[in-house]
Amino acid sequence: MIQTEPAATPPTELDRDVALVPADDDAGPGSDVRRFLGHLPGGWSVGGGINGGFLLAMLGNAVRETVPERPHPVAVAATYVGASTAGPAELTTRVVRRGTLTSVAVELAQEGAARITALATFADLATLTDEVATTAEPLRLPPLEECVRTSDAPADFKAGAPLVDRFDMRLTPRSAGWVLGKPSGEGALECWFRLLDRDADPLALLLAVDAMPPVTFDLGRPGWAPTVQLTAHVRAVPAPGWLRMRHVTRNLAGGFMEEDCEVWDSADRLVAQSRQLARVPR
Amino acid sequence: MIQTEPAATPPTELDRDVALVPADDDAGPGSDVRRFLGHLPGGWSVGGGINGGFLLAMLGNAVRETVPERPHPVAVAATYVGASTAGPAELTTRVVRRGTLTSVAVELAQEGAARITALATFADLATLTDEVATTAEPLRLPPLEECVRTSDAPADFKAGAPLVDRFDMRLTPRSAGWVLGKPSGEGALECWFRLLDRDADPLALLLAVDAMPPVTFDLGRPGWAPTVQLTAHVRAVPAPGWLRMRHVTRNLAGGFMEEDCEVWDSADRLVAQSRQLARVPR
Repeated sequence: MIQTEPAATPPTELDRDVALVPADDDAGPGSDVRRFLGHLPGGWSVGGGINGGFLLAMLGNAVRETVPERPHPVAVAATYVGASTAGPAELTTRVVRRGTLTSVAVELAQEGAARITALATFADLATLTDEVATTAEPLRLPPLEECVRTSDAPADFKAGAPLVDRFDMRLTPRSAGWVLGKPSGEGALECWFRLLDRDADPLALLLAVDAMPPVTFDLGRPGWAPTVQLTAHVRAVPAPGWLRMRHVTRNLAGGFMEEDCEVWDSADRLVAQSRQLARVPR
Repeated sequence: MIQTEPAATPPTELDRDVALVPADDDAGPGSDVRRFLGHLPGGWSVGGGINGGFLLAMLGNAVRETVPERPHPVAVAATYVGASTAGPAELTTRVVRRGTLTSVAVELAQEGAARITALATFADLATLTDEVATTAEPLRLPPLEECVRTSDAPADFKAGAPLVDRFDMRLTPRSAGWVLGKPSGEGALECWFRLLDRDADPLALLLAVDAMPPVTFDLGRPGWAPTVQLTAHVRAVPAPGWLRMRHVTRNLAGGFMEEDCEVWDSADRLVAQSRQLARVPR
Protein backbone atom coordinates (compact mmCIF):
# COMPACT_ATOMS: atom_id res chain seq x y z
CA MET A 1 0.00 0.00 0.00
CA ILE A 2 1.57 3.21 -1.12
CA GLN A 3 1.06 6.12 1.23
CA THR A 4 -0.24 9.53 0.26
CA GLU A 5 0.16 12.78 2.10
CA PRO A 6 -0.58 13.53 4.83
CA ALA A 7 0.92 10.24 5.89
CA ALA A 8 -0.78 10.19 9.27
CA THR A 9 -4.36 9.84 8.00
CA PRO A 10 -5.91 6.54 6.97
CA PRO A 11 -6.12 5.89 3.24
CA THR A 12 -9.11 7.37 1.51
CA GLU A 13 -11.10 6.06 -1.43
CA LEU A 14 -8.84 7.62 -4.06
CA ASP A 15 -5.73 6.41 -2.24
CA ARG A 16 -7.08 2.88 -2.07
CA ASP A 17 -8.15 2.89 -5.70
CA VAL A 18 -4.83 4.11 -7.14
CA ALA A 19 -2.83 1.80 -4.88
CA LEU A 20 -0.18 -0.32 -6.56
CA VAL A 21 1.84 -3.38 -5.66
CA PRO A 22 5.23 -4.26 -7.13
CA ALA A 23 4.99 -6.77 -9.96
CA ASP A 24 6.88 -10.05 -9.70
CA ASP A 25 9.54 -8.76 -12.08
CA ASP A 26 9.85 -5.34 -10.40
CA ALA A 27 13.47 -4.30 -9.79
CA GLY A 28 12.59 -2.61 -6.50
CA PRO A 29 12.86 0.86 -4.95
CA GLY A 30 15.62 3.04 -6.32
CA SER A 31 15.64 1.38 -9.73
CA ASP A 32 15.23 3.45 -12.87
CA VAL A 33 12.64 1.01 -14.19
CA ARG A 34 9.77 -0.17 -12.00
CA ARG A 35 6.88 -2.51 -12.64
CA PHE A 36 3.61 -2.33 -10.72
CA LEU A 37 0.22 -3.95 -10.70
CA GLY A 38 -2.98 -2.06 -10.04
CA HIS A 39 -6.69 -2.59 -10.34
CA LEU A 40 -9.04 -0.24 -12.20
CA PRO A 41 -12.31 -0.19 -10.23
CA GLY A 42 -15.53 -0.13 -12.24
CA GLY A 43 -16.76 2.67 -10.01
CA TRP A 44 -14.54 5.09 -11.92
CA SER A 45 -16.16 4.24 -15.25
CA VAL A 46 -17.81 6.73 -17.53
CA GLY A 47 -19.28 5.87 -20.90
CA GLY A 48 -17.93 2.32 -20.73
CA GLY A 49 -14.27 3.22 -20.06
CA ILE A 50 -12.33 4.26 -17.00
CA ASN A 51 -12.21 8.02 -16.45
CA GLY A 52 -9.06 9.62 -17.86
CA GLY A 53 -8.44 11.71 -14.75
CA PHE A 54 -8.49 8.66 -12.53
CA LEU A 55 -6.00 7.00 -14.88
CA LEU A 56 -3.76 10.07 -14.67
CA ALA A 57 -3.85 9.87 -10.88
CA MET A 58 -2.89 6.19 -10.98
CA LEU A 59 -0.03 6.94 -13.39
CA GLY A 60 1.02 9.73 -11.04
CA ASN A 61 1.03 7.29 -8.14
CA ALA A 62 3.34 4.96 -10.07
CA VAL A 63 5.71 7.84 -10.76
CA ARG A 64 5.64 9.00 -7.15
CA GLU A 65 6.48 5.49 -6.01
CA THR A 66 9.38 5.41 -8.48
CA VAL A 67 10.84 8.78 -7.42
CA PRO A 68 9.53 9.37 -3.86
CA GLU A 69 12.05 12.18 -3.36
CA ARG A 70 10.07 14.13 -6.01
CA PRO A 71 6.56 13.51 -4.74
CA HIS A 72 4.50 15.98 -6.79
CA PRO A 73 3.43 16.11 -10.42
CA VAL A 74 4.47 19.33 -12.16
CA ALA A 75 3.62 18.36 -15.73
CA VAL A 76 2.03 15.15 -16.95
CA ALA A 77 1.43 14.67 -20.68
CA ALA A 78 -0.62 11.59 -21.52
CA THR A 79 -1.65 9.99 -24.77
CA TYR A 80 -4.76 7.83 -24.54
CA VAL A 81 -4.11 5.04 -27.02
CA GLY A 82 -7.06 2.83 -26.11
CA ALA A 83 -9.99 2.64 -23.72
CA SER A 84 -9.22 1.23 -20.28
CA THR A 85 -11.74 -1.05 -18.65
CA ALA A 86 -12.37 -2.25 -15.11
CA GLY A 87 -9.89 -4.89 -14.06
CA PRO A 88 -6.18 -5.50 -13.61
CA ALA A 89 -3.62 -3.10 -15.04
CA GLU A 90 0.14 -3.26 -15.39
CA LEU A 91 2.15 -0.07 -14.96
CA THR A 92 5.74 0.44 -16.04
CA THR A 93 7.86 3.47 -15.19
CA ARG A 94 11.22 4.49 -16.59
CA VAL A 95 13.24 7.37 -15.21
CA VAL A 96 14.46 9.56 -18.09
CA ARG A 97 16.37 12.04 -15.98
CA ARG A 98 16.77 12.73 -12.26
CA GLY A 99 17.18 16.26 -10.97
CA THR A 100 15.26 19.03 -9.25
CA LEU A 101 12.79 18.25 -12.00
CA THR A 102 12.71 14.51 -12.55
CA SER A 103 11.30 13.13 -15.80
CA VAL A 104 9.69 9.72 -15.92
CA ALA A 105 7.99 7.84 -18.75
CA VAL A 106 5.03 5.80 -17.54
CA GLU A 107 2.70 3.43 -19.34
CA LEU A 108 -0.45 1.63 -18.27
CA ALA A 109 -1.32 -1.58 -20.09
CA GLN A 110 -4.10 -4.11 -19.84
CA GLU A 111 -3.68 -7.64 -21.14
CA GLY A 112 -0.34 -6.62 -22.57
CA ALA A 113 -1.70 -3.73 -24.68
CA ALA A 114 -0.83 -0.09 -23.89
CA ARG A 115 -3.92 1.94 -22.89
CA ILE A 116 -2.27 5.18 -21.85
CA THR A 117 1.31 6.31 -22.15
CA ALA A 118 2.67 9.45 -20.55
CA LEU A 119 5.67 11.58 -19.82
CA ALA A 120 5.70 13.01 -16.32
CA THR A 121 7.83 15.67 -14.69
CA PHE A 122 7.83 15.49 -10.91
CA ALA A 123 9.32 17.79 -8.28
CA ASP A 124 8.83 18.83 -4.68
CA LEU A 125 6.35 21.71 -4.90
CA ALA A 126 7.27 22.77 -1.36
CA THR A 127 10.68 23.87 -2.61
CA LEU A 128 9.36 26.40 -5.17
CA THR A 129 9.65 30.13 -4.64
CA ASP A 130 6.79 31.95 -2.92
CA GLU A 131 6.28 34.39 -5.76
CA VAL A 132 2.76 34.53 -7.18
CA ALA A 133 2.31 36.96 -10.07
CA THR A 134 -0.72 35.27 -11.61
CA THR A 135 -2.74 37.66 -13.77
CA ALA A 136 -5.64 35.29 -14.41
CA GLU A 137 -8.75 36.37 -12.51
CA PRO A 138 -9.84 33.91 -9.83
CA LEU A 139 -12.95 32.02 -10.82
CA ARG A 140 -16.07 33.46 -9.21
CA LEU A 141 -18.92 30.99 -8.89
CA PRO A 142 -22.46 31.21 -7.54
CA PRO A 143 -22.78 29.88 -3.98
CA LEU A 144 -22.64 26.13 -3.49
CA GLU A 145 -26.30 25.92 -2.49
CA GLU A 146 -27.37 27.32 -5.86
CA CYS A 147 -25.38 24.71 -7.78
CA VAL A 148 -26.36 21.30 -9.07
CA ARG A 149 -24.82 18.20 -7.52
CA THR A 150 -23.83 15.79 -10.31
CA SER A 151 -24.39 12.82 -7.99
CA ASP A 152 -28.09 13.81 -7.94
CA ALA A 153 -28.29 12.79 -11.60
CA PRO A 154 -31.01 10.30 -12.53
CA ALA A 155 -30.24 6.62 -12.12
CA ASP A 156 -30.07 5.97 -15.87
CA PHE A 157 -27.41 8.66 -16.26
CA LYS A 158 -25.43 7.35 -13.31
CA ALA A 159 -25.60 3.80 -14.66
CA GLY A 160 -23.35 4.98 -17.49
CA ALA A 161 -21.29 7.31 -15.32
CA PRO A 162 -20.85 5.78 -11.87
CA LEU A 163 -17.84 8.02 -11.30
CA VAL A 164 -20.16 10.87 -10.28
CA ASP A 165 -20.51 9.09 -6.93
CA ARG A 166 -16.74 9.22 -6.38
CA PHE A 167 -16.62 12.97 -5.63
CA ASP A 168 -18.75 15.96 -4.79
CA MET A 169 -19.17 18.12 -7.91
CA ARG A 170 -21.60 21.04 -8.07
CA LEU A 171 -22.19 22.51 -11.50
CA THR A 172 -23.20 26.14 -11.64
CA PRO A 173 -26.78 26.69 -12.82
CA ARG A 174 -25.56 27.99 -16.19
CA SER A 175 -23.28 24.97 -16.61
CA ALA A 176 -26.13 22.57 -15.79
CA GLY A 177 -28.43 23.86 -18.52
CA TRP A 178 -27.86 20.70 -20.56
CA VAL A 179 -29.47 18.69 -17.78
CA LEU A 180 -32.75 20.39 -18.69
CA GLY A 181 -32.03 20.32 -22.42
CA LYS A 182 -31.00 23.99 -22.41
CA PRO A 183 -27.23 24.13 -22.86
CA SER A 184 -25.80 27.65 -22.77
CA GLY A 185 -24.03 27.24 -26.10
CA GLU A 186 -21.01 29.04 -24.69
CA GLY A 187 -18.75 25.99 -24.57
CA ALA A 188 -17.87 26.34 -20.90
CA LEU A 189 -18.61 24.39 -17.72
CA GLU A 190 -17.89 25.56 -14.19
CA CYS A 191 -18.17 23.75 -10.89
CA TRP A 192 -17.22 23.36 -7.27
CA PHE A 193 -15.28 20.16 -6.62
CA ARG A 194 -13.96 18.15 -3.72
CA LEU A 195 -13.20 14.58 -2.80
CA LEU A 196 -15.68 12.96 -0.43
CA ASP A 197 -13.28 12.04 2.33
CA ARG A 198 -10.27 14.32 2.27
CA ASP A 199 -8.81 17.49 0.84
CA ALA A 200 -7.20 17.35 -2.58
CA ASP A 201 -3.45 16.88 -2.85
CA PRO A 202 -1.42 17.41 -6.05
CA LEU A 203 -2.20 13.88 -7.24
CA ALA A 204 -5.93 14.49 -6.82
CA LEU A 205 -5.60 17.52 -9.10
CA LEU A 206 -4.71 15.10 -11.90
CA LEU A 207 -8.08 13.50 -11.32
CA ALA A 208 -9.84 16.85 -11.07
CA VAL A 209 -8.75 18.20 -14.47
CA ASP A 210 -10.64 15.44 -16.28
CA ALA A 211 -13.53 14.91 -13.88
CA MET A 212 -16.06 17.27 -15.44
CA PRO A 213 -18.48 16.28 -18.19
CA PRO A 214 -17.29 17.02 -21.74
CA VAL A 215 -17.61 20.72 -22.49
CA THR A 216 -19.59 19.70 -25.58
CA PHE A 217 -22.55 19.05 -23.23
CA ASP A 218 -22.76 22.84 -23.02
CA LEU A 219 -22.84 23.06 -26.82
CA GLY A 220 -25.84 20.78 -27.19
CA ARG A 221 -23.70 17.85 -28.30
CA PRO A 222 -24.29 15.05 -25.84
CA GLY A 223 -22.20 11.91 -25.79
CA TRP A 224 -18.74 11.17 -24.57
CA ALA A 225 -15.72 12.91 -26.00
CA PRO A 226 -12.77 10.52 -25.98
CA THR A 227 -9.51 12.15 -24.94
CA VAL A 228 -6.69 11.84 -27.45
CA GLN A 229 -4.05 13.68 -25.46
CA LEU A 230 -4.08 15.54 -22.15
CA THR A 231 -1.37 17.62 -20.54
CA ALA A 232 -1.79 18.81 -16.95
CA HIS A 233 0.36 21.29 -15.07
CA VAL A 234 0.21 21.24 -11.29
CA ARG A 235 1.53 24.51 -9.96
CA ALA A 236 1.04 24.37 -6.19
CA VAL A 237 -0.15 22.19 -3.34
CA PRO A 238 -3.82 23.13 -3.07
CA ALA A 239 -5.10 24.76 0.10
CA PRO A 240 -7.69 22.73 2.04
CA GLY A 241 -11.34 23.08 1.07
CA TRP A 242 -13.38 23.30 -2.09
CA LEU A 243 -11.78 23.65 -5.48
CA ARG A 244 -13.36 25.69 -8.27
CA MET A 245 -12.93 24.54 -11.86
CA ARG A 246 -13.65 25.84 -15.32
CA HIS A 247 -13.64 23.83 -18.52
CA VAL A 248 -13.72 25.64 -21.85
CA THR A 249 -13.30 25.04 -25.56
CA ARG A 250 -12.60 27.66 -28.21
CA ASN A 251 -11.58 25.56 -31.18
CA LEU A 252 -14.05 22.88 -32.18
CA ALA A 253 -13.21 21.89 -35.76
CA GLY A 254 -12.50 18.90 -37.95
CA GLY A 255 -14.05 16.49 -35.46
CA PHE A 256 -11.73 17.52 -32.64
CA MET A 257 -11.67 20.13 -29.92
CA GLU A 258 -9.36 21.36 -27.24
CA GLU A 259 -10.63 21.43 -23.66
CA ASP A 260 -8.85 23.73 -21.24
CA CYS A 261 -9.35 23.22 -17.53
CA GLU A 262 -8.29 25.52 -14.75
CA VAL A 263 -8.46 24.63 -11.08
CA TRP A 264 -8.51 27.25 -8.32
CA ASP A 265 -8.08 26.47 -4.66
CA SER A 266 -9.76 28.06 -1.65
CA ALA A 267 -6.88 30.52 -1.33
CA ASP A 268 -7.56 31.85 -4.87
CA ARG A 269 -4.46 30.21 -6.26
CA LEU A 270 -4.48 28.81 -9.81
CA VAL A 271 -3.17 25.40 -8.74
CA ALA A 272 -3.63 23.42 -11.95
CA GLN A 273 -4.14 23.96 -15.65
CA SER A 274 -4.73 21.35 -18.27
CA ARG A 275 -5.46 21.15 -21.95
CA GLN A 276 -6.71 18.10 -23.75
CA LEU A 277 -7.38 17.27 -27.36
CA ALA A 278 -10.59 15.27 -27.62
CA ARG A 279 -12.84 13.91 -30.31
CA VAL A 280 -16.13 15.72 -30.69
CA PRO A 281 -19.09 13.42 -29.99
CA ARG A 282 -20.74 12.35 -33.24
CA MET B 1 16.91 13.17 -47.67
CA ILE B 2 13.37 12.96 -46.41
CA GLN B 3 10.86 14.83 -48.48
CA THR B 4 8.35 17.32 -47.22
CA GLU B 5 5.17 18.46 -48.87
CA PRO B 6 4.69 19.65 -51.51
CA ALA B 7 6.96 16.96 -52.84
CA ALA B 8 7.56 18.68 -56.17
CA THR B 9 9.43 21.69 -54.81
CA PRO B 10 13.11 21.66 -53.94
CA PRO B 11 13.94 21.33 -50.26
CA THR B 12 13.93 24.54 -48.30
CA GLU B 13 16.08 25.60 -45.39
CA LEU B 14 13.84 24.02 -42.75
CA ASP B 15 13.54 20.82 -44.79
CA ARG B 16 17.30 20.57 -45.14
CA ASP B 17 17.91 21.30 -41.48
CA VAL B 18 15.46 18.71 -40.11
CA ALA B 19 16.63 16.08 -42.62
CA LEU B 20 17.50 12.68 -41.21
CA VAL B 21 19.37 9.64 -42.41
CA PRO B 22 18.81 6.09 -41.15
CA ALA B 23 21.33 5.06 -38.50
CA ASP B 24 23.49 1.99 -39.06
CA ASP B 25 21.30 -0.04 -36.72
CA ASP B 26 17.99 1.22 -38.16
CA ALA B 27 15.52 -1.58 -38.86
CA GLY B 28 14.20 0.16 -41.99
CA PRO B 29 10.88 1.47 -43.31
CA GLY B 30 7.78 -0.22 -41.90
CA SER B 31 9.44 -1.17 -38.62
CA ASP B 32 7.88 -0.15 -35.33
CA VAL B 33 11.23 1.09 -34.07
CA ARG B 34 13.40 3.34 -36.21
CA ARG B 35 16.78 4.94 -35.60
CA PHE B 36 17.90 8.12 -37.36
CA LEU B 37 20.80 10.51 -37.35
CA GLY B 38 20.39 14.25 -37.72
CA HIS B 39 22.46 17.37 -37.31
CA LEU B 40 21.40 20.35 -35.19
CA PRO B 41 22.63 23.47 -37.00
CA GLY B 42 24.03 26.25 -34.85
CA GLY B 43 21.91 28.71 -36.82
CA TRP B 44 18.86 27.58 -34.82
CA SER B 45 20.47 28.46 -31.52
CA VAL B 46 19.03 30.83 -28.99
CA GLY B 47 20.57 31.56 -25.62
CA GLY B 48 23.20 28.87 -26.10
CA GLY B 49 20.82 25.98 -26.88
CA ILE B 50 18.91 24.87 -29.94
CA ASN B 51 15.43 26.37 -30.23
CA GLY B 52 12.73 24.09 -28.86
CA GLY B 53 10.43 24.61 -31.82
CA PHE B 54 13.11 23.54 -34.26
CA LEU B 55 13.69 20.42 -32.15
CA LEU B 56 9.95 19.68 -32.25
CA ALA B 57 10.00 19.96 -36.04
CA MET B 58 12.92 17.53 -36.23
CA LEU B 59 11.15 15.09 -33.90
CA GLY B 60 8.08 15.47 -36.09
CA ASN B 61 10.15 14.64 -39.15
CA ALA B 62 11.38 11.44 -37.51
CA VAL B 63 7.80 10.44 -36.71
CA ARG B 64 6.63 11.26 -40.24
CA GLU B 65 9.41 9.10 -41.65
CA THR B 66 8.35 6.27 -39.33
CA VAL B 67 4.64 6.42 -40.21
CA PRO B 68 4.50 8.12 -43.65
CA GLU B 69 0.87 7.02 -44.05
CA ARG B 70 0.05 9.46 -41.20
CA PRO B 71 2.04 12.47 -42.38
CA HIS B 72 0.76 15.22 -40.06
CA PRO B 73 1.26 15.99 -36.38
CA VAL B 74 -2.02 16.28 -34.46
CA ALA B 75 -0.63 16.39 -30.93
CA VAL B 76 3.01 16.42 -29.87
CA ALA B 77 3.87 16.50 -26.17
CA ALA B 78 7.55 17.01 -25.45
CA THR B 79 9.59 17.04 -22.28
CA TYR B 80 12.84 18.98 -22.52
CA VAL B 81 15.20 17.06 -20.27
CA GLY B 82 18.40 18.85 -21.21
CA ALA B 83 19.69 21.61 -23.46
CA SER B 84 20.50 20.56 -27.02
CA THR B 85 23.56 22.01 -28.68
CA ALA B 86 24.75 22.33 -32.26
CA GLY B 87 26.04 19.05 -33.63
CA PRO B 88 25.03 15.46 -34.26
CA ALA B 89 21.84 14.06 -32.79
CA GLU B 90 20.42 10.55 -32.63
CA LEU B 91 16.66 10.08 -32.91
CA THR B 92 14.73 6.97 -31.96
CA THR B 93 11.06 6.38 -32.70
CA ARG B 94 8.78 3.65 -31.37
CA VAL B 95 5.25 3.13 -32.64
CA VAL B 96 2.89 2.73 -29.68
CA ARG B 97 -0.27 2.19 -31.69
CA ARG B 98 -1.22 2.37 -35.36
CA GLY B 99 -4.65 3.56 -36.41
CA THR B 100 -6.44 6.58 -37.85
CA LEU B 101 -4.56 8.30 -35.07
CA THR B 102 -1.10 6.77 -34.78
CA SER B 103 0.88 7.25 -31.57
CA VAL B 104 4.65 7.27 -31.62
CA ALA B 105 7.20 7.82 -28.85
CA VAL B 106 10.25 9.75 -30.06
CA GLU B 107 13.45 10.74 -28.34
CA LEU B 108 16.35 12.93 -29.39
CA ALA B 109 19.70 12.23 -27.77
CA GLN B 110 23.16 13.72 -28.06
CA GLU B 111 26.24 11.78 -27.04
CA GLY B 112 23.96 9.08 -25.68
CA ALA B 113 22.01 11.37 -23.33
CA ALA B 114 18.33 12.16 -23.89
CA ARG B 115 17.74 15.86 -24.60
CA ILE B 116 14.08 15.81 -25.50
CA THR B 117 11.55 13.01 -25.29
CA ALA B 118 8.07 13.21 -26.72
CA LEU B 119 4.82 11.41 -27.43
CA ALA B 120 3.37 12.23 -30.82
CA THR B 121 -0.01 11.54 -32.35
CA PHE B 122 -0.01 11.71 -36.13
CA ALA B 123 -2.85 11.51 -38.65
CA ASP B 124 -3.75 12.64 -42.14
CA LEU B 125 -5.30 16.06 -41.62
CA ALA B 126 -6.81 15.92 -45.11
CA THR B 127 -9.19 13.21 -43.92
CA LEU B 128 -10.80 15.28 -41.14
CA THR B 129 -14.33 16.63 -41.41
CA ASP B 130 -14.86 20.09 -42.89
CA GLU B 131 -16.73 21.38 -39.87
CA VAL B 132 -15.30 24.52 -38.28
CA ALA B 133 -17.18 25.74 -35.21
CA THR B 134 -14.31 27.68 -33.66
CA THR B 135 -15.53 30.35 -31.25
CA ALA B 136 -12.13 31.96 -30.65
CA GLU B 137 -11.89 35.33 -32.32
CA PRO B 138 -9.33 35.49 -35.13
CA LEU B 139 -6.26 37.44 -34.13
CA ARG B 140 -6.31 40.99 -35.48
CA LEU B 141 -2.88 42.57 -35.85
CA PRO B 142 -1.65 45.95 -37.03
CA PRO B 143 -0.49 45.92 -40.67
CA LEU B 144 2.83 44.27 -41.42
CA GLU B 145 4.51 47.56 -42.28
CA GLU B 146 3.86 48.89 -38.77
CA CYS B 147 5.46 45.88 -37.14
CA VAL B 148 9.03 45.24 -36.03
CA ARG B 149 11.12 42.66 -37.86
CA THR B 150 13.00 40.56 -35.29
CA SER B 151 15.82 39.99 -37.78
CA ASP B 152 16.48 43.75 -37.60
CA ALA B 153 17.66 43.25 -34.00
CA PRO B 154 21.12 44.62 -33.15
CA ALA B 155 24.12 42.40 -33.85
CA ASP B 156 24.81 41.72 -30.18
CA PHE B 157 21.26 40.39 -29.70
CA LYS B 158 21.49 38.27 -32.82
CA ALA B 159 24.81 36.84 -31.73
CA GLY B 160 22.93 35.11 -28.91
CA ALA B 161 19.85 34.38 -31.02
CA PRO B 162 20.89 33.58 -34.57
CA LEU B 163 17.57 31.83 -35.11
CA VAL B 164 15.93 35.20 -35.82
CA ASP B 165 17.54 35.00 -39.26
CA ARG B 166 15.79 31.68 -39.98
CA PHE B 167 12.32 33.18 -40.47
CA ASP B 168 10.46 36.42 -40.99
CA MET B 169 8.83 37.49 -37.73
CA ARG B 170 7.21 40.90 -37.26
CA LEU B 171 6.29 41.80 -33.71
CA THR B 172 3.42 44.22 -33.27
CA PRO B 173 4.50 47.61 -31.90
CA ARG B 174 2.95 46.83 -28.51
CA SER B 175 4.74 43.48 -28.40
CA ALA B 176 8.06 45.10 -29.24
CA GLY B 177 7.99 47.53 -26.33
CA TRP B 178 10.70 45.55 -24.53
CA VAL B 179 13.09 46.37 -27.39
CA LEU B 180 12.97 49.99 -26.21
CA GLY B 181 12.91 49.05 -22.53
CA LYS B 182 9.15 49.63 -22.33
CA PRO B 183 7.43 46.24 -22.04
CA SER B 184 3.65 46.45 -21.94
CA GLY B 185 3.43 44.43 -18.73
CA GLU B 186 0.47 42.54 -20.15
CA GLY B 187 2.27 39.23 -20.60
CA ALA B 188 1.42 38.83 -24.26
CA LEU B 189 3.36 38.91 -27.53
CA GLU B 190 1.84 38.99 -31.01
CA CYS B 191 3.45 38.72 -34.41
CA TRP B 192 3.24 37.95 -38.08
CA PHE B 193 5.29 34.91 -39.03
CA ARG B 194 6.42 33.06 -42.12
CA LEU B 195 9.30 30.96 -43.32
CA LEU B 196 11.72 32.69 -45.68
CA ASP B 197 11.43 30.32 -48.63
CA ARG B 198 8.08 28.54 -48.52
CA ASP B 199 4.65 28.44 -46.94
CA ALA B 200 4.26 26.69 -43.64
CA ASP B 201 3.11 23.07 -43.56
CA PRO B 202 1.92 21.24 -40.42
CA LEU B 203 5.51 20.39 -39.45
CA ALA B 204 6.50 24.05 -39.67
CA LEU B 205 3.72 24.86 -37.18
CA LEU B 206 5.67 22.84 -34.60
CA LEU B 207 8.51 25.28 -35.16
CA ALA B 208 6.20 28.28 -35.08
CA VAL B 209 4.68 27.64 -31.65
CA ASP B 210 8.04 28.06 -29.96
CA ALA B 211 9.63 30.62 -32.25
CA MET B 212 8.63 33.80 -30.42
CA PRO B 213 10.68 35.37 -27.64
CA PRO B 214 9.65 34.36 -24.10
CA VAL B 215 6.49 36.16 -23.08
CA THR B 216 8.37 37.30 -19.99
CA PHE B 217 10.10 39.87 -22.22
CA ASP B 218 6.74 41.67 -22.17
CA LEU B 219 6.76 41.56 -18.36
CA GLY B 220 10.10 43.31 -18.02
CA ARG B 221 11.90 40.07 -17.21
CA PRO B 222 14.58 39.60 -19.84
CA GLY B 223 16.54 36.39 -20.18
CA TRP B 224 15.70 33.01 -21.61
CA ALA B 225 12.91 30.94 -20.20
CA PRO B 226 13.83 27.26 -20.53
CA THR B 227 10.93 25.07 -21.61
CA VAL B 228 10.15 22.20 -19.26
CA GLN B 229 7.27 20.72 -21.23
CA LEU B 230 5.45 21.75 -24.40
CA THR B 231 2.35 20.27 -25.98
CA ALA B 232 1.30 21.40 -29.45
CA HIS B 233 -1.96 20.62 -31.24
CA VAL B 234 -2.00 21.00 -35.01
CA ARG B 235 -5.58 21.26 -36.17
CA ALA B 236 -5.43 21.91 -39.91
CA VAL B 237 -3.07 22.27 -42.84
CA PRO B 238 -2.38 26.01 -42.88
CA ALA B 239 -3.46 28.07 -45.88
CA PRO B 240 -0.62 29.70 -47.82
CA GLY B 241 0.64 33.08 -46.68
CA TRP B 242 1.44 34.80 -43.42
CA LEU B 243 0.61 33.26 -40.08
CA ARG B 244 -0.46 35.35 -37.10
CA MET B 245 0.57 34.24 -33.63
CA ARG B 246 -0.15 35.20 -30.05
CA HIS B 247 1.81 34.14 -27.01
CA VAL B 248 0.34 34.74 -23.57
CA THR B 249 0.88 33.84 -19.91
CA ARG B 250 -1.67 34.11 -17.12
CA ASN B 251 -0.06 32.10 -14.34
CA LEU B 252 3.45 33.15 -13.43
CA ALA B 253 4.16 31.71 -9.97
CA GLY B 254 6.66 29.66 -8.03
CA GLY B 255 9.39 30.27 -10.60
CA PHE B 256 7.36 28.77 -13.46
CA MET B 257 4.85 30.01 -15.98
CA GLU B 258 2.62 28.61 -18.66
CA GLU B 259 2.94 30.03 -22.17
CA ASP B 260 0.01 29.55 -24.50
CA CYS B 261 0.51 30.06 -28.21
CA GLU B 262 -2.15 30.24 -30.87
CA VAL B 263 -1.43 30.27 -34.59
CA TRP B 264 -3.92 31.62 -37.14
CA ASP B 265 -3.55 31.16 -40.87
CA SER B 266 -4.41 33.55 -43.69
CA ALA B 267 -7.87 31.99 -43.96
CA ASP B 268 -8.63 32.92 -40.31
CA ARG B 269 -8.40 29.33 -39.19
CA LEU B 270 -6.94 28.52 -35.74
CA VAL B 271 -4.46 25.98 -37.10
CA ALA B 272 -2.32 25.35 -34.03
CA GLN B 273 -2.45 25.78 -30.28
CA SER B 274 0.29 25.04 -27.82
CA ARG B 275 0.96 25.35 -24.14
CA GLN B 276 4.31 25.09 -22.50
CA LEU B 277 5.51 25.09 -18.92
CA ALA B 278 8.69 27.15 -18.66
CA ARG B 279 10.98 28.42 -15.97
CA VAL B 280 10.75 32.14 -15.32
CA PRO B 281 14.06 33.90 -16.03
CA ARG B 282 15.86 34.76 -12.80
